[in-house]
Amino acid sequence: MDKTFIIDEERKQRIGFDEVIYGASKSVALLKNILKEYSDKNENVLVTKLQEDKAKVLLKIYKNAFYETDSGIFTLANIKIEENGSAKVGIISAGSSDIGVANEAYYTLSYMGVQSRIIHDVGVAGLHRLLNKLEELKTFDVLIVVAGFEGALPTVIGGLLPQPIIGVPTSVGYGSAKEGETALHAMLTSCANGITVVNIDNGYGAAMSAFRMIKLLNK
Amino acid sequence: MDKTFIIDEERKQRIGFDEVIYGASKSVALLKNILKEYSDKNENVLVTKLQEDKAKVLLKIYKNAFYETDSGIFTLANIKIEENGSAKVGIISAGSSDIGVANEAYYTLSYMGVQSRIIHDVGVAGLHRLLNKLEELKTFDVLIVVAGFEGALPTVIGGLLPQPIIGVPTSVGYGSAKEGETALHAMLTSCANGITVVNIDNGYGAAMSAFRMIKLLNK
Amino acid sequence: MDKTFIIDEERKQRIGFDEVIYGASKSVALLKNILKEYSDKNENVLVTKLQEDKAKVLLKIYKNAFYETDSGIFTLANIKIEENGSAKVGIISAGSSDIGVANEAYYTLSYMGVQSRIIHDVGVAGLHRLLNKLEELKTFDVLIVVAGFEGALPTVIGGLLPQPIIGVPTSVGYGSAKEGETALHAMLTSCANGITVVNIDNGYGAAMSAFRMIKLLNK
Amino acid sequence: MDKTFIIDEERKQRIGFDEVIYGASKSVALLKNILKEYSDKNENVLVTKLQEDKAKVLLKIYKNAFYETDSGIFTLANIKIEENGSAKVGIISAGSSDIGVANEAYYTLSYMGVQSRIIHDVGVAGLHRLLNKLEELKTFDVLIVVAGFEGALPTVIGGLLPQPIIGVPTSVGYGSAKEGETALHAMLTSCANGITVVNIDNGYGAAMSAFRMIKLLNK
Amino acid sequence: MDKTFIIDEERKQRIGFDEVIYGASKSVALLKNILKEYSDKNENVLVTKLQEDKAKVLLKIYKNAFYETDSGIFTLANIKIEENGSAKVGIISAGSSDIGVANEAYYTLSYMGVQSRIIHDVGVAGLHRLLNKLEELKTFDVLIVVAGFEGALPTVIGGLLPQPIIGVPTSVGYGSAKEGETALHAMLTSCANGITVVNIDNGYGAAMSAFRMIKLLNK
Amino acid sequence: MDKTFIIDEERKQRIGFDEVIYGASKSVALLKNILKEYSDKNENVLVTKLQEDKAKVLLKIYKNAFYETDSGIFTLANIKIEENGSAKVGIISAGSSDIGVANEAYYTLSYMGVQSRIIHDVGVAGLHRLLNKLEELKTFDVLIVVAGFEGALPTVIGGLLPQPIIGVPTSVGYGSAKEGETALHAMLTSCANGITVVNIDNGYGAAMSAFRMIKLLNK
Amino acid sequence: MDKTFIIDEERKQRIGFDEVIYGASKSVALLKNILKEYSDKNENVLVTKLQEDKAKVLLKIYKNAFYETDSGIFTLANIKIEENGSAKVGIISAGSSDIGVANEAYYTLSYMGVQSRIIHDVGVAGLHRLLNKLEELKTFDVLIVVAGFEGALPTVIGGLLPQPIIGVPTSVGYGSAKEGETALHAMLTSCANGITVVNIDNGYGAAMSAFRMIKLLNK
Amino acid sequence: MDKTFIIDEERKQRIGFDEVIYGASKSVALLKNILKEYSDKNENVLVTKLQEDKAKVLLKIYKNAFYETDSGIFTLANIKIEENGSAKVGIISAGSSDIGVANEAYYTLSYMGVQSRIIHDVGVAGLHRLLNKLEELKTFDVLIVVAGFEGALPTVIGGLLPQPIIGVPTSVGYGSAKEGETALHAMLTSCANGITVVNIDNGYGAAMSAFRMIKLLNK
Repeated sequence: MDKTFIIDEERKQRIGFDEVIYGASKSVALLKNILKEYSDKNENVLVTKLQEDKAKVLLKIYKNAFYETDSGIFTLANIKIEENGSAKVGIISAGSSDIGVANEAYYTLSYMGVQSRIIHDVGVAGLHRLLNKLEELKTFDVLIVVAGFEGALPTVIGGLLPQPIIGVPTSVGYGSAKEGETALHAMLTSCANGITVVNIDNGYGAAMSAFRMIKLLNK
Repeated sequence: MDKTFIIDEERKQRIGFDEVIYGASKSVALLKNILKEYSDKNENVLVTKLQEDKAKVLLKIYKNAFYETDSGIFTLANIKIEENGSAKVGIISAGSSDIGVANEAYYTLSYMGVQSRIIHDVGVAGLHRLLNKLEELKTFDVLIVVAGFEGALPTVIGGLLPQPIIGVPTSVGYGSAKEGETALHAMLTSCANGITVVNIDNGYGAAMSAFRMIKLLNK
Repeated sequence: MDKTFIIDEERKQRIGFDEVIYGASKSVALLKNILKEYSDKNENVLVTKLQEDKAKVLLKIYKNAFYETDSGIFTLANIKIEENGSAKVGIISAGSSDIGVANEAYYTLSYMGVQSRIIHDVGVAGLHRLLNKLEELKTFDVLIVVAGFEGALPTVIGGLLPQPIIGVPTSVGYGSAKEGETALHAMLTSCANGITVVNIDNGYGAAMSAFRMIKLLNK
Repeated sequence: MDKTFIIDEERKQRIGFDEVIYGASKSVALLKNILKEYSDKNENVLVTKLQEDKAKVLLKIYKNAFYETDSGIFTLANIKIEENGSAKVGIISAGSSDIGVANEAYYTLSYMGVQSRIIHDVGVAGLHRLLNKLEELKTFDVLIVVAGFEGALPTVIGGLLPQPIIGVPTSVGYGSAKEGETALHAMLTSCANGITVVNIDNGYGAAMSAFRMIKLLNK
Repeated sequence: MDKTFIIDEERKQRIGFDEVIYGASKSVALLKNILKEYSDKNENVLVTKLQEDKAKVLLKIYKNAFYETDSGIFTLANIKIEENGSAKVGIISAGSSDIGVANEAYYTLSYMGVQSRIIHDVGVAGLHRLLNKLEELKTFDVLIVVAGFEGALPTVIGGLLPQPIIGVPTSVGYGSAKEGETALHAMLTSCANGITVVNIDNGYGAAMSAFRMIKLLNK
Repeated sequence: MDKTFIIDEERKQRIGFDEVIYGASKSVALLKNILKEYSDKNENVLVTKLQEDKAKVLLKIYKNAFYETDSGIFTLANIKIEENGSAKVGIISAGSSDIGVANEAYYTLSYMGVQSRIIHDVGVAGLHRLLNKLEELKTFDVLIVVAGFEGALPTVIGGLLPQPIIGVPTSVGYGSAKEGETALHAMLTSCANGITVVNIDNGYGAAMSAFRMIKLLNK
Repeated sequence: MDKTFIIDEERKQRIGFDEVIYGASKSVALLKNILKEYSDKNENVLVTKLQEDKAKVLLKIYKNAFYETDSGIFTLANIKIEENGSAKVGIISAGSSDIGVANEAYYTLSYMGVQSRIIHDVGVAGLHRLLNKLEELKTFDVLIVVAGFEGALPTVIGGLLPQPIIGVPTSVGYGSAKEGETALHAMLTSCANGITVVNIDNGYGAAMSAFRMIKLLNK
Repeated sequence: MDKTFIIDEERKQRIGFDEVIYGASKSVALLKNILKEYSDKNENVLVTKLQEDKAKVLLKIYKNAFYETDSGIFTLANIKIEENGSAKVGIISAGSSDIGVANEAYYTLSYMGVQSRIIHDVGVAGLHRLLNKLEELKTFDVLIVVAGFEGALPTVIGGLLPQPIIGVPTSVGYGSAKEGETALHAMLTSCANGITVVNIDNGYGAAMSAFRMIKLLNK
């Protein structure tokens, strides 16, 4: 039978970055084949949402690979990552349960050569923790705001700060949190202006959106 | 055929207030019969969610009745309403589109003999409008917080103030607002502690809940 | 990397109680750090929805900690809990499957210094069990009503008793019970007046709402 | 073009009753054709959910037809309806807003030659109104229970009475009532035993189910 | 602490049958207490939806108990079950995957002293299997029709046979089957007349409804 | 400002048919511009889901245009439609309320030069009406099956006949019919094999699918 | 009673733009008050989603106001709008039914002093229309992509072009389009990387997000 | 007790293929009985969605059986499969995570004697991979298009190619992918013409639909 995947070779040329592998629903056998092909071509590869048991098998094969448990990010940097200018992304997380998604954004940005920093645990139930960080938050070029439960944090930040804001709803919460749907819809219907949103738990997608914006500055 | 409604005569004795008539899905003919029965017994009656065209017919019959358009509240005060102590309810609304629901709470509390005041248009997109009112808000015994769109306001207030807080989601918004469902679920899954919630657009229910709490103070 | 959580130090001052830790989605490593920080400051801490396997690890470290399996409540009382007056909360449960959520409310109230008592298994399918308890129920200041399946219990109680009533829908049931959604929506759209509602399975939230109401009496 | 409907001629023989016409989504032109065909064959016909404007046109043609506005029931009795024994159906309605659906059940049963009686406005928020009627309710062979909002009434009755119980959720209510879905799911997941349910607002279907049960007695 | 359950002692007198225990969400410890109480009172008890591992523990204690794996039905017959007349229930299942739910109905009826028989695997994709059974189906007093996937079977039977029909949707299927919701809603909105419906996978509830109907014949 | 639509000129070459205009959400002004452009190029055009008031305006301009009210189909045949071989499509409708959608399929097929015939009102509640037509149904090459309510008809036909079957759920019904969603999901999860489905009320889409299949025969 | 709205005076200072008025759910009386307050302060004001009948009343009062029917955008420019640099936004619409939402984005950007251009009717069913425009699309700094039905357009563009992409799902379509929900969720779960999304029909929100990004270039 | 399944013996005669066994929800014991019956009659049998652990047991009994892990397809070919002409089905998959569903279609078609070929990993995020295959795709008689996430691939192909297209949404993705619901609804509401759709993950159903179409060519 034929090869079951095809590397999109011209993607970097078209849009400035390579394909990324969604790890959650691929077998170890398939992932091994994909990693081998990238390594043979001496290209870097980023795998997202990779389960720990599958990561362990791959880490044994590729000693220089990187894997972070909370986020499920797996990277294989066959060539050195080039820096993407001096712009900086702020990743703001509402609670310490959101750490996996915040890390997913952080490590994706690292892989793309973009600087970022996570501001942890500044949810709106303790508003002063957020207000204390406002001066620091003003220094970032783009803000990624990660929140579960009712997802109110991007709305509050959207009323306080002028940068592009990418809301990332997380599946943290239970019952009416509906595995992140409530936070997602709350961010989409925010009374604050000009907030954009990515899929539930999609720290990776938020990072790629931020990357597209940062590229504006480097034109 | 038999009478199609039965007044629950002992309700006031049991729970401290009379039946209330849900006006939205009753015909004018039926409402006339109900109002007549209450008037004949010289009792007060409150009708909620009454459409304007139906209200106009009833107002012609009962010259002393009261009707407010934005809220759809209709009252017929055949006997004087007694005051319920000095406790005071604050009704906080996120935006000026929420005025109908805020008014529904306000006029219901009036009808129950409870003092209240509406604090208009202090949504979280302009956080300073809210922070400027904090001292005033501290003076209320119970807070009713009315918000549509993403419904973040009760969460922010819940982190700032110690009183009982009743969130009222409204059907203001479109698309992901889902006619109030998003605000409802956001309030239910709030990261702030100890917020309770009533049905979408249910200013009346919030007022009745506040009334039950105020009664605690009068025991 | 920075600390991934920030204690909201002034919360007690603002709203009368400290932060509470949502345990379900935090790793043991993160929970250890958080407990250590609270212990170092000699403060009490309450963890909710904590899974048994994680609790066992923490109980080995903190010998004086308390954990209850059905509810997942974990507490570490570094300082003595002060009583909150003589007011008393009644926790009414519809069936014996609701015991975990009822216990969550009970142990949270204990932690807050509020007296309460659980009235078990008085669901509406056996109405006389409930009617037999009416005199006892009248003695409580606030009622928390816990019910799964169709969630009818708060509606029936709301028509019989005058106190503030906090409905807690539970995820007990299958099929059309929709993991608690049906009970939740039934409570929100109750034909009884003045019932408020908290999130599915949120015994903790109901307790905190009751606490806010009890504080009214102590002003 | 061909005739756009086909009378199911043998249905009465098979299942004991004729076809019924769902009027809501048929044009007046189509309804005229259908009524003419039934009249030409000298058969009775029942039309459900018929809008008032369309009914008015048909009533002008068939002077002996019957139409009831609240329920939208339209009947044309070309031959005398035969009685179906002495069994009797009780139709219990939770509130006076449910009158249209209760009437739909009542007039359908009349058309089928079955005796019934509506017990109005005995919703659970005023439990004593229901308890006062218990002795009367025991005299019926089958109970149809009509309720909107949270739909708790069949559950309470199911715990008190032994007859077959058919729950009919209505679309009365707003917000979390979800146009009858909440009442529907609440009845389906009732903690009372042996309740069956029909579609939202389907008084007609409840009557036909009751008719099938009554036929058991006449075998 | 108090006992966490209360036997509803007068239920049999009121509605003709005892309480039934929902086993799925109760701990073994709680179930042991409940069974002991029933045994001490020398009463029968029926437990539904009991998981196999929990059943095994209980079967070791009560050697004379009965447990059936596919349905999760557990019964403890401390006193002899009395026959309920000669009426007979037909349980019709659409496919062999529906066997657990059909068995739940069957064993519940046995426990209630009602005769029944399962007609297996006559789904509408092979219509002739059903048509071949029509004569047999006519001999039952009440029909319980169990179907997953699109749930069309009760509709087809409803057009062919005159008896009371209780549809039981099952959670068999995937994707658009939505764990039984599609079959449930299809049965509720059936174009056939007079079908009633119970909750998804609720073979027990269907049996209890049939029992209520059978009792009509014994009056 | 630029032209707000662009004719996809090569579509016919690529896939064998021209663009079709979705009329429901376009203004009369926009539709006029589009029709003019097609007429100027001497091309045929099909508009779907066109409301009657808008159609009336356009019919005044294009005297030779065709409009059918039940379906909302509007066509402007500037050039003669060529026949597409002798293959024939059977359009089967469950009830006379489904006539609009059946007509949409019929007139679309006419416009595409494909022969078809509507078999009306053979829903499964009167199975013999369908069985009487089986021999006729065997003569069609492709079957389009239109049904609302529970949408069981394609399932029954799928078990009886070997042709390609395209199910079209309609929005006929109320309550649990969920504006066609129940019929849609029922068709998708049919226990019969090899049925395909199109969008709710999408008679046009079913016709285009049938057209693609008919083209197979003409290769 | 108090004023029912409060202008957020410092918003421009904080985030670079003023409050915007959501017109859909405000009465004409309220809108008059708001416009008067802005005019008295000699400030500009933008009203979104304003219905035509309400706009007509306001246009009579403010002769220099601007209103566009398809989008419902109403602006009152009391002071001259300043240009925001030379960056340019491309607004790409999938079909001519999406014109209202595309216009909403366009006129909002004008109001904010940002240049933009609408590329109409390049939906993926006619891929070549899109591929023909690729060179032009590369010249924009930010892309807003407006699409209803299945919402595939942002995904295709996301694989072809490197700029920041803001997807705007529209409520164009019927049945499974679910008033825009399907397009919304499709955009959120796009297999293309780095697409962000705003609420259904929220052309205004997309414009504000683009504005935040354009501001990056002007720092 | 009776046999719990009935082979539909005349199905092949009626519709050209035998029954197929849905393996996911049947016990090993039941499957053994079914396989034995088919083997005893020397007939072929296809089991779908069979879990690996159950397959292993059956493979030990039937050494000549075939099982494929990714798809869960299990076949027992007791008699030789006859070829169904020269027509050929193209199975196009959007990503390598869709391999299980693509294989399910492939192996079902093999079992039916129809030739097919899988074109892997040509999702729309890398459009050129698809455009490179267009000439090959034109050679197939019917196209099955398998896609998860936003499900855009059938829409793009529907605008490029004239054959019958069967969309198969897969449950690949997370959050807003809603376990395949988003892809399903996107395919149903596609702006491309004449696409039909089967249930989520239903590669088997797509193959059977293709088989019905291929049969057209063999008449």
